[in-house]
This record gives sequence, C-alpha cells and structure tokens, in this order.
Amino acid sequence: MSLSWWAAPCQPLDAVARSKAAARQQVLTKPAGSLAVLEEMAIELAAMQGRERPLLDKLWIAIFAGDHGVVAEGVSAYPQEVTGQMLRNFVGGGAAISVLARHLDAALEVIDLGTATPLEPLPNVRHLNLGAGTFNFAQGPAMTQTQLYIALEAGRDSVRRAKAGGAQLYIGGEMGIGNTTSASALAAALLECPVTLIVGPGTGLNAAGVAHKTAVIEAALKLHRAHAQNPLAVLQHLGGFEIAALVGAYVACAQEGITVLVDGFICTVAALLAVRLNADCRPWLLFGHQGAEPGHHAVLEALQAKPLLQLGLRLGEGSGAALAVPLLQMACRLHSEMATFAEAAVADRDQ
Amino acid sequence: MSLSWWAAPCQPLDAVARSKAAARQQVLTKPAGSLAVLEEMAIELAAMQGRERPLLDKLWIAIFAGDHGVVAEGVSAYPQEVTGQMLRNFVGGGAAISVLARHLDAALEVIDLGTATPLEPLPNVRHLNLGAGTFNFAQGPAMTQTQLYIALEAGRDSVRRAKAGGAQLYIGGEMGIGNTTSASALAAALLECPVTLIVGPGTGLNAAGVAHKTAVIEAALKLHRAHAQNPLAVLQHLGGFEIAALVGAYVACAQEGITVLVDGFICTVAALLAVRLNADCRPWLLFGHQGAEPGHHAVLEALQAKPLLQLGLRLGEGSGAALAVPLLQMACRLHSEMATFAEAAVADRDQ
Repeated sequence: MSLSWWAAPCQPLDAVARSKAAARQQVLTKPAGSLAVLEEMAIELAAMQGRERPLLDKLWIAIFAGDHGVVAEGVSAYPQEVTGQMLRNFVGGGAAISVLARHLDAALEVIDLGTATPLEPLPNVRHLNLGAGTFNFAQGPAMTQTQLYIALEAGRDSVRRAKAGGAQLYIGGEMGIGNTTSASALAAALLECPVTLIVGPGTGLNAAGVAHKTAVIEAALKLHRAHAQNPLAVLQHLGGFEIAALVGAYVACAQEGITVLVDGFICTVAALLAVRLNADCRPWLLFGHQGAEPGHHAVLEALQAKPLLQLGLRLGEGSGAALAVPLLQMACRLHSEMATFAEAAVADRDQ
Repeated sequence: MSLSWWAAPCQPLDAVARSKAAARQQVLTKPAGSLAVLEEMAIELAAMQGRERPLLDKLWIAIFAGDHGVVAEGVSAYPQEVTGQMLRNFVGGGAAISVLARHLDAALEVIDLGTATPLEPLPNVRHLNLGAGTFNFAQGPAMTQTQLYIALEAGRDSVRRAKAGGAQLYIGGEMGIGNTTSASALAAALLECPVTLIVGPGTGLNAAGVAHKTAVIEAALKLHRAHAQNPLAVLQHLGGFEIAALVGAYVACAQEGITVLVDGFICTVAALLAVRLNADCRPWLLFGHQGAEPGHHAVLEALQAKPLLQLGLRLGEGSGAALAVPLLQMACRLHSEMATFAEAAVADRDQ
C-alpha cells in the first residue's frame, strides 16, 4: 500500500443524474426555487448517488475520541478524565449523540484512538491505543508520523465499515478535552490568519481563559512554523488523533462515494485538511451546522460552505450534523414525492 | 357566545415544570448551555405541557386557503386558479406540505375559505364558502365584519378539532395567490413602517413587479388609514380569509393550551395580529423558519421571535414550520433521554 492513499482519485459525480434532478425540480408544484437550499441538496445528492431521486435511509455515525497533551497548558474548562468517561456514555446510550443516533435509526460506532487515563476495554468501543493522548504541542510535535498515519487509516477503516453496511450518509463526530485548542491552531496555521480571530471559549472558558488559550496557540505556531506549508505536517505537529481520523474518513468517503455531513468547528477544520490533501473530495462534503466557535465562520468561508443549521450549539460529538439529517431526508422526500404541474393539473406561472 | 372570544384568557404556563426542566438541563452530560436553543425549546415546552419531560408525538397541520381580490391589481406572478388547483394537490398528496405531513406522521386538514374560481366539493377539504375570495382592498375593505368573524372562528374550530385529536403541536399553513400583498399591507399598517421595507417578490415577481406591488399597497394604506389603529379593523380592511383564520387559530391554541409552531412571513403577520388581539398568546408561539421575504425580519423583530431555521424558503403551506418539527422533537428526546453527570459517572467542570 502506498503511504499516500489519500491522494488516490475520488468518485466522480454523475452529471446526467444531476441534470435530471435539476429538471425535475423545475416542474414540481411550487414556485421555482422556493425550496431554496433543499432543492440544491436534492440535486447534489442525486449527482452523488447517480440517481434522479436520491435516498437517505442508511446513516452511519462514527465518533472518534482522543486526548490532547496541550491540556497540560490549562486550556480547557473540563478535566481530561471526561474523554474516557464520555466514551462509556456514548456506548451506554446517555450522550447527546447516542440519543440522536437512536432517534435517526443510525448506526453508531465509537473509536477510542488513545486517552490520557487508561481505560478498561469497553464493549462496543474500538480501542486503537495510539498513545496516552497526543504530546503537548506547546513543547513539540503533537504526534509521530506513524501515529498520524495510523489515525488517518482509522478514519478510512471506519468508512470501509460504513460502505459494507450500505451507508448513504456518513457523519464523523469527535470527543477530546482540549480539541478546540488543537483545531484553532490548525485553522490559524492553514488559513494564515491571526489566532485571535479563531479562538473562542470552546466548551466554556471565560475571557481570561480564552486569552491564555490564544497565547498558548500563538507560541505553538512559532515553535512549529517550519512545518506550516505542508498540510500533513501541520496536522502531525498541531493536530489530534481524532482530528486526523476525521481527515482520513472524509477523504475515504469521497473515494468510496459516500456523502459526508460535516459537523461543527473541529470537524470543519478536518474537512479543510481533507480538501488540502485531496481537493477532489470537496463535492462530497455537505455541512450540517454552524456552531458558536468564532473560528468556524472563517474555516467555512475558506471551504465556501454554508451549513444547513445555525443553532449556536457548541457540543461536538457529531450532534450538529445529526440534527441536520432530517432536513436532508425531507429534501429527498420532497424531491421524490411531490407532484409535477402536469400530474396535478396545476398552472405554472407564465414563462 | 360573545363576539370577542379571542379576548378570553389563555392557558397559564407551568412555572414548576419549567424550573424542573431548567434544572435537569444543568445536569445532563454536556457542557452547560451547549445545546443552546434546543435547551430553551425543551424548557419552554415543559412549561407549556406542565411536565418536566415534554413530548411531541401528535402533530396537527391545518392549511387555510383563500383568494384575494387585490390580485386584480396585477400583484402576483401566478394565475388565481392556482389556489383551487393547489387545494386538490394538498388532498391528493402531491404538494410539499402533503409530503412533509406524511414524513412527520402529522394529521393534515385542508380548509377552503373561499376561492375565486368555483370548485366542485373536494373530498377531505372543508369548504366554508365565505365568498369568491376577498374584495379588492385597493378599492374597499377586503371583507365584511361577518366574513372576518367567520374566518376567525374557522381557525378556532380547527384548533378544537386538533385538541380533540390530542395534538401537542399545531402548525397553520396558508395558500392564496396574492397573499404576500395582503400580509405586507397588514405588516406595514401594524408596524407603521414604510412599505418599501416590507415588500418583496412573493413567489416570484421581478423588480418592476415589486415596485408596482409597493405602489398598490401604499395607495391602499392611504385609503384605509382611518382604520389603522385597531388590529381587528386592519385585518378586516387589508387581510385575507386564510390570514384571519390563522389569527383565530393562534389565539385559540393559546386558550386551549396547544403549542403553535409558526411558519413564514404570512403566518408571522397572523401571529403579530394574534398577539395584538390577545397579548397572552405570545408564550404559546414558537417560530419555525425565517423566509426570504424582506418583511419577515421586521415582523419577527416586533414579536422578539427567533426562528429555528433560516433556509431562505418562500413556499408557504406551513412547509417551513414542518421542516423545523424534527428539531423540536430531537430537543425533547435529548432532554428526556440524555444521562445526567451522576447517572453516567462523568465529571462536570469545576463550578
């Protein structure tokens, strides 16, 4: 296997299905364009699925968890044990994403890439044991190249399981105390923009906490500035295991032909990395939710992405994407089941 | 029966249930406030339903249709026959709201208040025959006081059927060629703001069409200015049968204790009228979608309302509210089913 599997071609989109779907939208019994983004979504899904009337019945949600060495710098409001505790909660059914996955009848898999506090093996969790979290990127690279490659492959392997399960939509979620710090550092490095424009409170820092987090990231960007030109090196030096897994998953979805619904800030940073590694994956990425973290807006803009929801959530776990799933499903059903002007004998406007 | 049934008291909200629900949100396994508006929605629904863990299983959608005499002024891109044709499409299952009601397993009822083109009786449509549409409000009052009262009662009667059916959520939708013109006139009169800030393309006017529509409304506001101080008189002079029915329905929901999910621009104007008639109905109104029509923003602001979705739709039929239903249902399930920190043995942040 080549080490650069992520550069392999992505699935092409079906221009015929897209054009048939676009034509169908024009003759459904509604003013042209009145369903706005829901029309666009149905058309894009048609192009991805290669059929005029796309379906979204089979959903796959993968949660990637990992700890972050940079938490030693005091950048999070929560203790690091929470990462492991939440892994139990995901498979126990009590976390937000567990509830949403049940509601949506989605498959939910949980991948532990490496937590700071050792965990007993948990039923229904895949423990990959890449390390006791990443290293503290305030002092050195967050991970080794080997860890990076294994994390990327963990994402690809999840997508292969989703493919085998017949998934039509893939949601990646993340859990990792400290990971908005890593995501903010990655965003500032990739977008070459001031750290202050990116950093926010994460799950609950106050103003002093945000200022400290900003200073930690600024110092880290200086430390690693020699590696800022190469997205893979940026990911290795400033990223997290779960973020790297998401990058691998997004590229692999495009290669396998599975639509991605990207979640909030951290996932969107992973999406930006995926597009930097393989630009052809961009058409396979839809965006579920614009969160409260200030950097999210900048990263979405770089991707020219407009999420379906703007609810101000700041939870992660894939929850914002999961909440947007019914909109995509209803877009498909409207596209598929609405009557045409001719079928319903309704007059269209004068053309 | 008193003619002013709409002034009768609304159901009070349950402060104990609200406070229990708010306390529960603080101990669920997520950063406090991270589910943002979904937390607020669960708490408000708890207060309305009088139970700590609210349910949204029983949905009622009522579509009110009526024609508008002001269409004679050339204010719509569509021919007036479409109102009646769409009535057939609603009950035939091919309209957007028909598809959404099926998807949501919602009861759907269709009420024809009066169309310009006579219709044969349609199965599953309630024909109320208030008139062949409203009069042209560019020339005189849109309806008589008797028509207004019957239309308001049509809304209340729909809510009584919803109540008998056990509805936990009521969506009113509208259909009526020309009704953005009526809604814009009502909004400008009620908000006492320039017509140019309110008027938009409706279902598809071009710039010249919008300018003409604006001029028609400005002239009508002058014609009816003697009646601008009384919301009921404003509704009679500038409204539509379906808009009056929505006003009656919204007030009746608050009186019967059923949560309302308000749809787009036209429904929001009806909500503003409902609040002007009976201010105590306001807490029972939730808002589903902010549409593309420019006046919608101004009316929402007057109601201090923030809709769940901003998708840029401009269809009506209750579709924007229907699309927001899954968010409210997921808010309830998250509230009800997530584990607490204690149950899941997850550490909360230091307080």
